[in-house]
Amino acid sequence: MNGPTPKKSWKEELFTIIFEANTPAGRNFDMALFVLIVLSLAIVMLQSIASINARFGPEMLTIEWVITILFTLEYILRIISLKEPLKYITSFYGLVDLLSILPSYFSLLFPPSHFLLAIRALRLIRIFRILKLGQFVREGNTIVMAMKASTKRITIFLAFVLLLSIMLGALVYVVESGVNEDFSSIPQSIYWAIVTITTVGYGDVSPITPLGKIIASGIMLLGYAIIAVPTGIVTVELSKRSDKDAMNTKSCPGCAAEIHDIDARFCKYCGHSL
Amino acid sequence: MNGPTPKKSWKEELFTIIFEANTPAGRNFDMALFVLIVLSLAIVMLQSIASINARFGPEMLTIEWVITILFTLEYILRIISLKEPLKYITSFYGLVDLLSILPSYFSLLFPPSHFLLAIRALRLIRIFRILKLGQFVREGNTIVMAMKASTKRITIFLAFVLLLSIMLGALVYVVESGVNEDFSSIPQSIYWAIVTITTVGYGDVSPITPLGKIIASGIMLLGYAIIAVPTGIVTVELSKRSDKDAMNTKSCPGCAAEIHDIDARFCKYCGHSL
Amino acid sequence: MNGPTPKKSWKEELFTIIFEANTPAGRNFDMALFVLIVLSLAIVMLQSIASINARFGPEMLTIEWVITILFTLEYILRIISLKEPLKYITSFYGLVDLLSILPSYFSLLFPPSHFLLAIRALRLIRIFRILKLGQFVREGNTIVMAMKASTKRITIFLAFVLLLSIMLGALVYVVESGVNEDFSSIPQSIYWAIVTITTVGYGDVSPITPLGKIIASGIMLLGYAIIAVPTGIVTVELSKRSDKDAMNTKSCPGCAAEIHDIDARFCKYCGHSL
Amino acid sequence: MNGPTPKKSWKEELFTIIFEANTPAGRNFDMALFVLIVLSLAIVMLQSIASINARFGPEMLTIEWVITILFTLEYILRIISLKEPLKYITSFYGLVDLLSILPSYFSLLFPPSHFLLAIRALRLIRIFRILKLGQFVREGNTIVMAMKASTKRITIFLAFVLLLSIMLGALVYVVESGVNEDFSSIPQSIYWAIVTITTVGYGDVSPITPLGKIIASGIMLLGYAIIAVPTGIVTVELSKRSDKDAMNTKSCPGCAAEIHDIDARFCKYCGHSL
Repeated sequence: MNGPTPKKSWKEELFTIIFEANTPAGRNFDMALFVLIVLSLAIVMLQSIASINARFGPEMLTIEWVITILFTLEYILRIISLKEPLKYITSFYGLVDLLSILPSYFSLLFPPSHFLLAIRALRLIRIFRILKLGQFVREGNTIVMAMKASTKRITIFLAFVLLLSIMLGALVYVVESGVNEDFSSIPQSIYWAIVTITTVGYGDVSPITPLGKIIASGIMLLGYAIIAVPTGIVTVELSKRSDKDAMNTKSCPGCAAEIHDIDARFCKYCGHSL
Repeated sequence: MNGPTPKKSWKEELFTIIFEANTPAGRNFDMALFVLIVLSLAIVMLQSIASINARFGPEMLTIEWVITILFTLEYILRIISLKEPLKYITSFYGLVDLLSILPSYFSLLFPPSHFLLAIRALRLIRIFRILKLGQFVREGNTIVMAMKASTKRITIFLAFVLLLSIMLGALVYVVESGVNEDFSSIPQSIYWAIVTITTVGYGDVSPITPLGKIIASGIMLLGYAIIAVPTGIVTVELSKRSDKDAMNTKSCPGCAAEIHDIDARFCKYCGHSL
Repeated sequence: MNGPTPKKSWKEELFTIIFEANTPAGRNFDMALFVLIVLSLAIVMLQSIASINARFGPEMLTIEWVITILFTLEYILRIISLKEPLKYITSFYGLVDLLSILPSYFSLLFPPSHFLLAIRALRLIRIFRILKLGQFVREGNTIVMAMKASTKRITIFLAFVLLLSIMLGALVYVVESGVNEDFSSIPQSIYWAIVTITTVGYGDVSPITPLGKIIASGIMLLGYAIIAVPTGIVTVELSKRSDKDAMNTKSCPGCAAEIHDIDARFCKYCGHSL
Repeated sequence: MNGPTPKKSWKEELFTIIFEANTPAGRNFDMALFVLIVLSLAIVMLQSIASINARFGPEMLTIEWVITILFTLEYILRIISLKEPLKYITSFYGLVDLLSILPSYFSLLFPPSHFLLAIRALRLIRIFRILKLGQFVREGNTIVMAMKASTKRITIFLAFVLLLSIMLGALVYVVESGVNEDFSSIPQSIYWAIVTITTVGYGDVSPITPLGKIIASGIMLLGYAIIAVPTGIVTVELSKRSDKDAMNTKSCPGCAAEIHDIDARFCKYCGHSL
């Protein structure tokens, strides 16, 4: 601090621009990226609408490929600028960045995979950092951590709901299959049981026999009651966490990990000084 | 207090009548306003029913314009009677009052906008003040404050649900679009994903391929589990707020016991009338 | 306690049989009542099924009238046996008992009202007392008291949801009415908005324009988020109450009120010794 | 412990293999069992799909019978290896094991009952023990215990919802039955009321009269509000329980009960040393 700042290497400069948002260059980079992501998503959606694709198909395809090449370049630059690129590549953001360019290349072989570009939506999560919405990031972290702490219980709960749906689906299949074409097989009946127990209720499949309706009513009441379980689980976890525990969202120069404790001076993933 | 009350200016009189409900004139003004709002809403609804509009169209239009002019006058009087009218104009109530008269004037240019008069429903919030439902207002505030404190978390949660719907919609589009006319484009598929993840389930769009149904089942179970998140958030906020005011603390004249249920008319310890 | 029990008057005897379940006669009376209620409900349901009514119509009508006359006699005896019959007549149980016989008599004038006999289902609440399910009654009380304490907040919340539905219904009406026959009027659109915001989602009415679908998606996400509010309210109330606070379910000889605090020695509604 | 381990009897050996997963033989046994259960479920589902059954019907039937015979043998061995087999037979796992073989034998008399083999899905609960997912078992226990503690309240709540559905169903029947074929009888209307109050909303039955729609809207808002009750109940129960209370999942050699307190040295069901 009290000596002259040592000149940054080009790698460090690149890192600051690409991974940080606290310099003008870094901020402009992030804004351009954000605009590209939104544009890219809009193109993917418009391409899927037959009438629009018929008129502007070639133009949209050109734009999409330009964006894909830019994203590919960005991905390569990110890897180059880091000291431990593997950590980034295997991180959540790294995987999202990779998955955001792959569908374009795969679509050369299997065209419909092209629409999987919608995964680029996940890149929008960066918007929170770009807009310096620190408080949102912190609140988001509280939710994510409560979800993580509840993962095991929620998993068990969903496994339980699935087992229940398998058995109830088979039961209603036995009751309805003879007279109701909707219940054409057990997998179809299980699909119906899930639609019912989660209270979604499309109505594309519904029972017509009195006994089927009675069982269906039981499943609905059950679904109505057990939705309480995941809610209780998450509520208890959330109430354990305090709003106070703020987080440091500065990227680690070593591995690009972004969430550090507020008092952390070294990255807890790679040991690099923050 | 011990000197003669200074005579109020006409502005102060106007203020008391329009903004307060603790004088006979103010109370009458509020009651008349309430009746007009309800009448106005009824007219708007009836106008939208073709058979009724065919018979009473001109009469209803006349009543509506009379009410609109009265509301416009009221809005002007409110502004005149205040010392700092800008505060009112930019407040929630001020905006609602303005938005409640604009659709009538806009409908001269674009007739269907006429039905946006339904926004007058918001003016009914005044009913709580008119009916002196102080306790309801207090409880309402607790809810509003808990909601405000949860706004950031709920926003993040809804943004997350939206991102999820975009990606899952695109995924099911890739799976279903070839064989199912319902999934005609990605935006349409995103609409379906939102209908499913929120457990609404209209059934106007539903998957028909086995893979589509499997993914749909996953989305339903996910939606069934993550509804726990906003619930947990609001519950935690609400539990932070206390409402001690629950009990009747009048002493019993018979035995001086102090805590009685709010509906008790006799002391439950000695039988004395309270 | 240490002297001979004074002979009970016939009124007191009647009271013991009709209102209490702790003597053999009282217990038999309650069991007979329970059987009659269930039989009566079964008859009402079967009468509504055309094919069954065609075959056993007259027989079922006879049974129903016999039960109605028995219930009428029981209602009169209840009034006679009490010292303050007005308290019973205006109590929850008193109103249910009255409403359980009225539809039969009204059906002489307006036949379909006959099916409102289904209100007899409410009489089944007595089953908890008959079966001496004290613990269930206590748990039920905890729920009822938490619901009562939440009534104001839930009312405000539902009023808010209703106002929202009125405005959103009108908004979607403006957007959809020209091209979608489903949205034929504002009341119909409000009905749709309620179906959507509560996540019921019949699908009998659904938007077809892109803008309509976007607004609908917003309403769904809103409904998905604000369901958190009543849940939070009730959870907070329930968590305030302890499982321990048991209740005394002995009927008051003065006014037949049934729920008294465990330490109450006098009825808190009429002051009579318990 | 300080003397030579006494040689196990063949019964004890069998017990270790069948009921424990901490020896190589026991682990292999459990893995084989798991594979058989999954295979069996897959067969049952495939058999229900007409096109697949037409081609591979006899082969699948053969596999199913082989599995059924293996499961029957396993059930007999389990009974033989225990000192107090009755405890196992009447336990949850014992009943599931029995119900998993019965449908095959019943299907000789009543073929469709064959599909009830889906109950074998319940046997998958053993997977948690096989995979040594102790933590999942512990979390699952917390949920199960919270559910058990809430059983009475949830039961009362569901009984209340059912009574409400009976009355509201009958009410809407009176309103709709004349003009709407969907509401053909009171039981059918009750089915509709349950579909609506639980927010499932198939849309196979829906009101068409204005009054019917108003009542339906009320039922939806009610259902939207009272879903708060089971949620509140379970949340309160869950928050009472601590994550810490770990459990001992070693099977009791006397009765095969699996969940014991961490400090238990004797089975609390049969007193056998653990």
